[in-house]
Amino acid sequence: MLKINGERLWASLMAMAEIGATARGGSCRLALSEDDKAGRELFARWSLEAGMSLSVDPIGNLFARRPGSDPDAAPVMMGSHLDTQPEGGRFDGVYGVLAGLEVVRCLNDLQIQTRKPLEVAVWTNEEGARFTPAMFGSAVFTGIMDLETALAVRDADGISVAEALHATGYAGTRPLGGAVDAYFEAHIEQGPILEDNAKIIGVVSGGQAIRWLDVRVEGMAAHAGTTPMPLRKDALYGAAQMILAIETLATDFAPEGLTTVGELGIAKSSRNTIPGLLQFTVDLRHHRDSAIESMDQEVRARLAAIAEQRQLKVTINPHWISPATPFDADCVAAVQQAVDGLGYAQQSIVSGAGHDAIHLARFCPTAMVFIPCVGGLSHNEAEDVLPEDVRQGTDVLLNAVLAHAGQVA
Amino acid sequence: MLKINGERLWASLMAMAEIGATARGGSCRLALSEDDKAGRELFARWSLEAGMSLSVDPIGNLFARRPGSDPDAAPVMMGSHLDTQPEGGRFDGVYGVLAGLEVVRCLNDLQIQTRKPLEVAVWTNEEGARFTPAMFGSAVFTGIMDLETALAVRDADGISVAEALHATGYAGTRPLGGAVDAYFEAHIEQGPILEDNAKIIGVVSGGQAIRWLDVRVEGMAAHAGTTPMPLRKDALYGAAQMILAIETLATDFAPEGLTTVGELGIAKSSRNTIPGLLQFTVDLRHHRDSAIESMDQEVRARLAAIAEQRQLKVTINPHWISPATPFDADCVAAVQQAVDGLGYAQQSIVSGAGHDAIHLARFCPTAMVFIPCVGGLSHNEAEDVLPEDVRQGTDVLLNAVLAHAGQVA
Repeated sequence: MLKINGERLWASLMAMAEIGATARGGSCRLALSEDDKAGRELFARWSLEAGMSLSVDPIGNLFARRPGSDPDAAPVMMGSHLDTQPEGGRFDGVYGVLAGLEVVRCLNDLQIQTRKPLEVAVWTNEEGARFTPAMFGSAVFTGIMDLETALAVRDADGISVAEALHATGYAGTRPLGGAVDAYFEAHIEQGPILEDNAKIIGVVSGGQAIRWLDVRVEGMAAHAGTTPMPLRKDALYGAAQMILAIETLATDFAPEGLTTVGELGIAKSSRNTIPGLLQFTVDLRHHRDSAIESMDQEVRARLAAIAEQRQLKVTINPHWISPATPFDADCVAAVQQAVDGLGYAQQSIVSGAGHDAIHLARFCPTAMVFIPCVGGLSHNEAEDVLPEDVRQGTDVLLNAVLAHAGQVA
Repeated sequence: MLKINGERLWASLMAMAEIGATARGGSCRLALSEDDKAGRELFARWSLEAGMSLSVDPIGNLFARRPGSDPDAAPVMMGSHLDTQPEGGRFDGVYGVLAGLEVVRCLNDLQIQTRKPLEVAVWTNEEGARFTPAMFGSAVFTGIMDLETALAVRDADGISVAEALHATGYAGTRPLGGAVDAYFEAHIEQGPILEDNAKIIGVVSGGQAIRWLDVRVEGMAAHAGTTPMPLRKDALYGAAQMILAIETLATDFAPEGLTTVGELGIAKSSRNTIPGLLQFTVDLRHHRDSAIESMDQEVRARLAAIAEQRQLKVTINPHWISPATPFDADCVAAVQQAVDGLGYAQQSIVSGAGHDAIHLARFCPTAMVFIPCVGGLSHNEAEDVLPEDVRQGTDVLLNAVLAHAGQVA
């Protein structure tokens, strides 16, 4: 099996991290900002130095292309994103882009030609920190989102995506979409599973199903000092019981089921007022669509029972639904064969976070390679990875892509 | 037993409610505002018409005095406050002031002279809606709070109490405090107990003990999609269990024990982030100091156990402590004898809310008379009372005060 140049890749990662470097060791390159532009230009320079050609589509997705021997073949694509959270880490997204570049550099070193062309994609606004929603570059590329809708999105200062694309010079003309033979994205796990299991490579089988619910609990606001307990309709005591029922639900659907209550707000809250109205969010996740449908029904049944018992009114509205996204069997097999051949410690894993690859999977055969991040920490300036893991993950990417793109003898 | 003129009192209540009347039937007279000044001036005019003399102390407390036959006797005081919440009701405070005035008017009608002088007090800033803390007029009068401290308090617009007193003409010169024979305050219950028990008169035995705690729960923020349930340290799931334990605590100390969690805030909350840090408040109440001390210890023990079990860090800090305030046995007996003599439906009750009488009780013999408010509702424009209850409560006040002040034969 081929091996990449781990030191070169690490040096590139560290050089990219200097652009928008933050005081506490992270990076800040908000989508289509001057720093994001600078990061893209560094990548573009490296790509040109590696003999690749560049193109940009109307939503600013940047592609570096290495030709194949077959002029009719669709490209095998790698990539991820270079934009970051405001207090982002050095590896989220950047790793997938520079791993793709390292694969090309390595093939150049080895003078290996592939039958199918290779492309390294830099997707626009994966993070969603400046422009909402997240991942709209890959969404527009794959036809999941309208170009016009995305161009009209404005940031907190009122600057539209269209304006930011023109300001940075990234309003390109390459046609959106087009034939893609396959897409392979390397990424840090952004969770603790690989580290906890002492594995280096996660062979990602797909993205899990997600349901976001909005829950509203209505009781009766009253004075904390003058209202006897039996006469109260306390929305928060009710919500506390509901939230524990939601925690228990995860146990009932273990280990695949995940439940989170991330936001809770009490209306007109005051220290000596019994909460009369509050809202909280529910985030449900599971590998299978059928299971998440059951979880959704269970949430509704259990919360309704608690509300009835406590004489509260509960309203549950769906906020967002994302079905499970299984990855392509052949692409996953290519990753599995690469890691088997390399003999690295590995496991199958489901992607818990959103990635451009989740969009690509609805458009073309797709797979991902995960490597651990220290302590599972991401979206944080302290985000860290081990250089050895960076190297092994890129070895897997190299061999999987090469197998899929076809080495010309 | 003597009876007051219910129609005259009701007409006065309705006339006062016109000052600062709100669109939805309530009153807005923020402390030392122009509307509060207008309310005080109406009361002052009525007091002068009833033959009383006026005085104002340096914190703006306004006193209307009816002389007694004994020039050496300290006054028997009645009263409450005329300021309101921003969306306040027509009876909270106003009832106690105008009931006191009605007692004097009634004695005038009956040409009854008392041995001790009578005074009707209008305490400054009972509500605390404009200036913090609440009830500082009675606090300064009784020496619980420094005059200088109170004068320096500023509202949200930066206007100090001293400036507001001068602007309204209520920076008076009557010495603070002085001898008070007894203090009787009539007030709406601001809770549902009397209505729920179909009683008209609450013979208030004192104020309950209050403890306010600040609880901070620290876990580990993490991604809702990538973190397996067993690896989570979810501050909100922990807090939900703690909050239910606090609810159970009230049951363990029933019926006197009350527990409320009124505020809860998750730091950097987001729908798909496991809460890593949050804070909530605890309001504990009980009639007895020894019991509230036990409740406090139980909160600490139960929350610490939950935190340990969940690998969370919990910190509990006292925010404010107010010991139980038993009222004067003789004054309470005077109220009890009046209501017994009148034969009105009554019960003993503990004051759940704060009142000027709670401050006065540390300064002079004190008692209160409660009447029901519809649905227990207060601090609300929809606050309402039944005219018949207003009348009966004032009958009780009249006979209790007359007994205490001594009728000159």
